[in-house]
Amino acid sequence: MNMEKNYLLENARAIELYEKVKDLPIYDYHCHLDPEAIYKDEPCPDIGSLWLSGDHYKWRLMRQAGVAEKYITGDAPYKEKFIKYAESSCFAAGSPLFSWNVMELDKYFGIEDTLTGESASDIYERAAARIKESEMSPRKLIKGSNVRFIATTDDIADSLIWHEKLKKDESFDVTVTPSFRCDRLLLINKPDYADYIKKLEDVCSFEIKSIDDLCRAIEARLSYFIERGCIFTDLGIPDFPDRIGTKEEAQAAFSAALNSGEITRESYMSFLGYMMTYLGRLYKRTDRVMQLHLAVKRGANEALTSLCGADCGSDCIGDVIKGDHIIALFNEIAREGGMPRTIVYTLNPSMTELLVTIAGSFRNVSVGAAWWFCDHKRGIENVIRCIAEEANLGEFTGMLTDSRSFLSYARHDYFRRILCSLIGEWVENGEYPEALAFPLAKRICCKNIADIIAQRASAEGAR
Amino acid sequence: MNMEKNYLLENARAIELYEKVKDLPIYDYHCHLDPEAIYKDEPCPDIGSLWLSGDHYKWRLMRQAGVAEKYITGDAPYKEKFIKYAESSCFAAGSPLFSWNVMELDKYFGIEDTLTGESASDIYERAAARIKESEMSPRKLIKGSNVRFIATTDDIADSLIWHEKLKKDESFDVTVTPSFRCDRLLLINKPDYADYIKKLEDVCSFEIKSIDDLCRAIEARLSYFIERGCIFTDLGIPDFPDRIGTKEEAQAAFSAALNSGEITRESYMSFLGYMMTYLGRLYKRTDRVMQLHLAVKRGANEALTSLCGADCGSDCIGDVIKGDHIIALFNEIAREGGMPRTIVYTLNPSMTELLVTIAGSFRNVSVGAAWWFCDHKRGIENVIRCIAEEANLGEFTGMLTDSRSFLSYARHDYFRRILCSLIGEWVENGEYPEALAFPLAKRICCKNIADIIAQRASAEGAR
Amino acid sequence: MNMEKNYLLENARAIELYEKVKDLPIYDYHCHLDPEAIYKDEPCPDIGSLWLSGDHYKWRLMRQAGVAEKYITGDAPYKEKFIKYAESSCFAAGSPLFSWNVMELDKYFGIEDTLTGESASDIYERAAARIKESEMSPRKLIKGSNVRFIATTDDIADSLIWHEKLKKDESFDVTVTPSFRCDRLLLINKPDYADYIKKLEDVCSFEIKSIDDLCRAIEARLSYFIERGCIFTDLGIPDFPDRIGTKEEAQAAFSAALNSGEITRESYMSFLGYMMTYLGRLYKRTDRVMQLHLAVKRGANEALTSLCGADCGSDCIGDVIKGDHIIALFNEIAREGGMPRTIVYTLNPSMTELLVTIAGSFRNVSVGAAWWFCDHKRGIENVIRCIAEEANLGEFTGMLTDSRSFLSYARHDYFRRILCSLIGEWVENGEYPEALAFPLAKRICCKNIADIIAQRASAEGAR
Repeated sequence: MNMEKNYLLENARAIELYEKVKDLPIYDYHCHLDPEAIYKDEPCPDIGSLWLSGDHYKWRLMRQAGVAEKYITGDAPYKEKFIKYAESSCFAAGSPLFSWNVMELDKYFGIEDTLTGESASDIYERAAARIKESEMSPRKLIKGSNVRFIATTDDIADSLIWHEKLKKDESFDVTVTPSFRCDRLLLINKPDYADYIKKLEDVCSFEIKSIDDLCRAIEARLSYFIERGCIFTDLGIPDFPDRIGTKEEAQAAFSAALNSGEITRESYMSFLGYMMTYLGRLYKRTDRVMQLHLAVKRGANEALTSLCGADCGSDCIGDVIKGDHIIALFNEIAREGGMPRTIVYTLNPSMTELLVTIAGSFRNVSVGAAWWFCDHKRGIENVIRCIAEEANLGEFTGMLTDSRSFLSYARHDYFRRILCSLIGEWVENGEYPEALAFPLAKRICCKNIADIIAQRASAEGAR
Repeated sequence: MNMEKNYLLENARAIELYEKVKDLPIYDYHCHLDPEAIYKDEPCPDIGSLWLSGDHYKWRLMRQAGVAEKYITGDAPYKEKFIKYAESSCFAAGSPLFSWNVMELDKYFGIEDTLTGESASDIYERAAARIKESEMSPRKLIKGSNVRFIATTDDIADSLIWHEKLKKDESFDVTVTPSFRCDRLLLINKPDYADYIKKLEDVCSFEIKSIDDLCRAIEARLSYFIERGCIFTDLGIPDFPDRIGTKEEAQAAFSAALNSGEITRESYMSFLGYMMTYLGRLYKRTDRVMQLHLAVKRGANEALTSLCGADCGSDCIGDVIKGDHIIALFNEIAREGGMPRTIVYTLNPSMTELLVTIAGSFRNVSVGAAWWFCDHKRGIENVIRCIAEEANLGEFTGMLTDSRSFLSYARHDYFRRILCSLIGEWVENGEYPEALAFPLAKRICCKNIADIIAQRASAEGAR
Repeated sequence: MNMEKNYLLENARAIELYEKVKDLPIYDYHCHLDPEAIYKDEPCPDIGSLWLSGDHYKWRLMRQAGVAEKYITGDAPYKEKFIKYAESSCFAAGSPLFSWNVMELDKYFGIEDTLTGESASDIYERAAARIKESEMSPRKLIKGSNVRFIATTDDIADSLIWHEKLKKDESFDVTVTPSFRCDRLLLINKPDYADYIKKLEDVCSFEIKSIDDLCRAIEARLSYFIERGCIFTDLGIPDFPDRIGTKEEAQAAFSAALNSGEITRESYMSFLGYMMTYLGRLYKRTDRVMQLHLAVKRGANEALTSLCGADCGSDCIGDVIKGDHIIALFNEIAREGGMPRTIVYTLNPSMTELLVTIAGSFRNVSVGAAWWFCDHKRGIENVIRCIAEEANLGEFTGMLTDSRSFLSYARHDYFRRILCSLIGEWVENGEYPEALAFPLAKRICCKNIADIIAQRASAEGAR
């Protein structure tokens, strides 16, 4: 199946609009790309490795089709894995993976054949030839996708050594910034928490025994990150505080965590509420963008997680978070001068409308693009429509890849085609004027997020 | 952008059907129009005041676009506010506000231009000329929209003086009835609750110290309301009882409220369960329609609410209410002779299907039109479809404005166009016979609710 | 209104695809057909009895339209009931009942007229003539629908006498198997629980005083069922365990139930968690398919249930079940060798995405077809799309009737038309290759479930 020129463009206005939109630059403000790989820029391996070495979306699809673990996270050769994946995905109609297969094969490998068990071996070889011939590499893929800005996701204890090298490398003019991710800091009930704090002490060169120390460490690290261009922060833990603890309560939880003591759920919630308030206010003071990723369940399948570790494809949508708790946190953060610029995502689509109306009740807060399990045609449309219906679509910050793969810029193209179809439909129906269609699409595709970045990029920060 | 003749009519059958439907009378059985304004019928002010003096939907849209509060609830001149609103709303594709702008400009002002920052000043002036030229006033707007019946929303302590005057005014033949709204009576944890009961005592001319007194007051006020035409009652509080309290428990909570004592959540829930049961049974005995508005969160943004008061645009969708609690209340009410005629609404769209199936399990209970944040094209379609799929669309009571603005009758037109598109689609697809399309649409647009009203309008009640 | 040839087929590819799909065999792996009726194969009565003697879907529709109970569950003649139903359903546009009316009248009675109050009497008589003329009977309806396999739903204490007779009856070549349903066994808080256990003791011929006895009884009965062809099991209780109890906790709850003692919610939840773990592991060991029907509320309307008993049309969608609880149960079951082949359904559509991602995290687990209140055009599409987007559509096990009526095989046709429209749309849009459309549709319509059945059908089991 070849990817038609008008792939996913569902009406005439969409086709016209897409022509104007397709070459707009990409600001990939949330992804999991490896800065070391960008810096080293080594030639890409085979398509089997590229697609299957770390993509838990694909692993899940294969497990659902009954493929043995050997071909998923096991030691089978990547060509065999690729063939198994082809067999598993060829009946996955309606899956974003099916679309991404088509788009990536077309865009990066010039291959128009349908990927099936029969065609897989041939496609594998042709892809290898193309990789070699085109000297495919991370930077080539990034530049070829017209990317201007990348925000990777980095633990706050990270040295950012590769970001520093990239910043100094004048041969590469794409801005690559770290994002400040505090997940490990907050997950005090993890068995390795004390070790993590030890690592943070080493990085900070001071002891972290109290909440005050911890906050000092956070501030030191945030300064360090900001000096290296950090504009975005992130948090994507499975839990959300149902209360705002006092400093004393947070201290008690933190002490227990350091001493491997028992931490009750109440104590953990208090700690979380206290710390998330602290972080929100810190981001307000330093004018960084707070990203919150809500309603995720990680490592749902315990046996699989034991076997294959985290991020192996046993995560799922988390239970709906109470709006009352989100509102309580926002009010507490905002008590000191209002909310920071905040982008909030939910993995549970049944709380999207709720979240959009909460965001719409606070200045500077908006809901971000369809996340992870929601990142498919209908899910993307749904988030766009919810923002349109209950907030203000003109302010939407648009797409990000959220990916570990340099091939995932195809997802921006996927998003833009869907966006153009939707706006095009409104124009065709007489619901929205044609004259405003491109200005609106441009705001969503790049202008809104570029403005947010530009306002926060200091001289010593992002280039 | 001009509003095309076939605006929102998505197929040929919809166009045919709409021709028959568009001039059906309107029974606006739930709104927040001011009876005093209807009685006095003063000339309308400028479009800035008309649109922006009290419309928190528009205020939210402007805040999302970053407009300063001065231009929202502040003291900027209305023309400047109007221009800021135009700038904020012109990129709000897919928002019902965008549609309402188009429809109201077309319908009431004869203006076909797209409202943008550039066109706003000119549109403002042309609207002013039109208001003057047409001698626009509340009654003219009501009559021009073919409204037959209005049910305003009134606190039970209200004197209904303007309703009385309206009833005696033979120059105005639209029935304007009060609706019996008990919110303040139930919100015992509000700081001004004792003052409110004092006011109610004054109105009733007897002391209200006990639950028995309170119920006597309610019955007295309901009789007073019914004598002035009341057919509908309403309740739209953020909480829903998770238990049915005994009279003693309700008494304890009420006494605590009067003495500004502490009221636990359990005590409040008991009071609420007891009182909502009492009210439901009272409405059954007096054959009034019980409206319940569920899952709303009011004043979510505390700082904004402190600054601007209630209804300033910081409300949002409330958390899902447990079906088990709704069912428990309905069973308790129904124990004495069944449920009153009940129309139940939810602001949280993820509980719509649940609520439709609960309603469908009790006689006389049905789900009402898409409410507030759900009142947009997709939301309206969704409620209609849920009722169709899981209850019986032929019994749907249709649209209401729920608005404070005399220009909001455009929302009935908006609803009817969407309804016609949906029924038209079914007819075109061969899923529903053409011969029944208009009878069905008529039931929903006016007949069902007109029948409910007619059955309850007594000689001394509604005209 | 006649049912057009291309009824519900919304594009040209759908029409082509449906031509290939329509005659594929039916494997009805979950229904409530009465094996006695299949065995006896008595001539069908009038259409009034056929449609209205046990169909609570239709009863609800009539109650919503205000029809008196006499014509629903009362003693009015079936012809009168049929007329009342016609009056109630003719405005029920968008209801699956409206579609089923059209399809059943067309398919089984050759009647193309729209069923309304006016036409009902005539249609009733013509249907009677057709029933007589065609010698309509259960087996004729089953064979005429190209059914290969039926799994009825049977309490584990059932003697399966009619299944045995059917198995020996060589004149009927459709496999009819019992399904192992444990609901009554788990509902320890029902007043007749001790009586039920007494019955089970009689069937097993040993005393059941302890959890060990109970498990021994379950295993004995499951062996008995498997010997009579059982492949599928089922559970459809309103509750879901929020904890996994120990054997001691389960024993305490069971003892209390036998002695009509008080059972706390905690104790009941412990029992449920323990027993569902036990059952899941048992099904894994015996390689039976575990079906779980989640989020149902039974007998919501207490007065109606008192009056008319269970299954009278007062059930509704249950509250969302926490994903955390489902995950906890699956992990506990899986600890001993993984999950059995599991098909999980939810009645609450707002948890569909959550459930699909949970299922996708465990091998052998998948989400089943749209259930009950979700079993309509949009609901079917939604489940298909959720599985497509978040799992792997190629593995979907497709449709089942879940019905008590021999006329309900029309629902498979309804499903197939909707499926063909959806796949056809993807093909037309260039999102899925035409060459794979039929293979995919065949997997969903019959192949996937036929494979599951074939793998488990032993020599002494299903034929």
